[in-house]
Amino acid sequence: MSIPDEKIFPHATGLAAKTVELHQQPQDLVFYAGWFCPFVQRSWIALEEKGIPYQYKEVNPYKKEKRFLEINPKGLVPAVEYKGKALYESLIICEFFEDAYPSYTPHLLPSDPFERAFVRLWVDFISKSIVPAFHRVIQAQDAEKQKAGLEEFNRALRTLAEKVKGPYFLGEQFSLIDVALAPWVVRDYIVQEHRGYTREAVGARWKEYAESLEKRESVLKTQSDKEHYEEIYARYLRDEAQSEVAKAIRSGRGLP
Amino acid sequence: MSIPDEKIFPHATGLAAKTVELHQQPQDLVFYAGWFCPFVQRSWIALEEKGIPYQYKEVNPYKKEKRFLEINPKGLVPAVEYKGKALYESLIICEFFEDAYPSYTPHLLPSDPFERAFVRLWVDFISKSIVPAFHRVIQAQDAEKQKAGLEEFNRALRTLAEKVKGPYFLGEQFSLIDVALAPWVVRDYIVQEHRGYTREAVGARWKEYAESLEKRESVLKTQSDKEHYEEIYARYLRDEAQSEVAKAIRSGRGLP
Repeated sequence: MSIPDEKIFPHATGLAAKTVELHQQPQDLVFYAGWFCPFVQRSWIALEEKGIPYQYKEVNPYKKEKRFLEINPKGLVPAVEYKGKALYESLIICEFFEDAYPSYTPHLLPSDPFERAFVRLWVDFISKSIVPAFHRVIQAQDAEKQKAGLEEFNRALRTLAEKVKGPYFLGEQFSLIDVALAPWVVRDYIVQEHRGYTREAVGARWKEYAESLEKRESVLKTQSDKEHYEEIYARYLRDEAQSEVAKAIRSGRGLP
Repeated sequence: MSIPDEKIFPHATGLAAKTVELHQQPQDLVFYAGWFCPFVQRSWIALEEKGIPYQYKEVNPYKKEKRFLEINPKGLVPAVEYKGKALYESLIICEFFEDAYPSYTPHLLPSDPFERAFVRLWVDFISKSIVPAFHRVIQAQDAEKQKAGLEEFNRALRTLAEKVKGPYFLGEQFSLIDVALAPWVVRDYIVQEHRGYTREAVGARWKEYAESLEKRESVLKTQSDKEHYEEIYARYLRDEAQSEVAKAIRSGRGLP
């Protein structure tokens, strides 16, 4: 039996395709990516923000190549290969960029210890509350669950929006909180078109913040054309997606 | 209706009671704790390892006091109050200690950026695979689910044990990986007595590592008498516990 996700569109399009094209030369840092994946986009935004030299390699995570599995047996994207060793997990990769490239700016974590911890708390909130709620609402099949899912999603967004200073979460400084959240903001039209979400219903503050995020250059440069995301999200909307995240939500587990 | 967890034994006993007694004086850092909580024990181990001055305050998280809720509206333990501001989340607190007290050793994260990321990956594995598996196996009520839970727990422990250099995960250096895991190692007798787990069945390497962890001074000094944990875990074993973790497992959600 073929896994439907194997037939995923094979490469980035639109502005993201141009970014890919600019990062084909061999570098110390190899970025293994899937153009469509919001977790990949987090690490990709961080790379583009900081201007770290990297080589982009597209991986279809449902059809994993040998070299990729050798360095990264879990086979997940995003992954980075750095001097022959692999790292994975989008946020751990972002923190790695901060630690390994201290002279590349902007810094996505503040230097003050308390402020760093504060940023990590909100990143944790995004990972534990906003991202699972996004997936629950799009994977929900019956009307009642969709409604409950949307309420949960809106509530989580409101909780975060209350703390936004604007234009970004911390104010003028673009931080790891914005990086962690932006990929789901640029995909929220899926929830809008299919589950009745609107930014307005979350609140004016949320709408304004979401617009700041989607206009950020690093976010625009890591995005493909809408039509190709739609093809992928159609599987989620029918709850047929085979990604690890989709399976975790379906079986009532925490995200992998 | 009274919440059963409100009647929790009110304070630390055994070696932990002595540690509490030594940390009653006011300090810049206030540690809000629940003596029984494994997440609290993580941050507590980190404090004891590093010798950071702190004031211990016992909180019953099911009967939250006003001052505690003022600084920490989510009301979760562990929490720290630092110059009038609060932080929570056990691992974020541990990383905060590293950042805010750079001259206090041992360092729980290596200085090399790749090694730091490697430690964070395994800490993430503990949080996403080992801890939920522990809770699923003890909260499972029917025999089949208990068996599946135990297999999942053993598998996760084996995956980690394969990478242990000994005596600690990274070798001689005691790290955040050991801190993140130790509280569930010292509680594994619960799974042994009620769900048929043995360290031997996981493997010799696991057994040896588990023994290194439970003998570590910081781990011993943050533990109360077994009988009081048993009273608490009895609620988990009947799947009646009202903690956020217990409720998340019961409803098929990721851990909060």
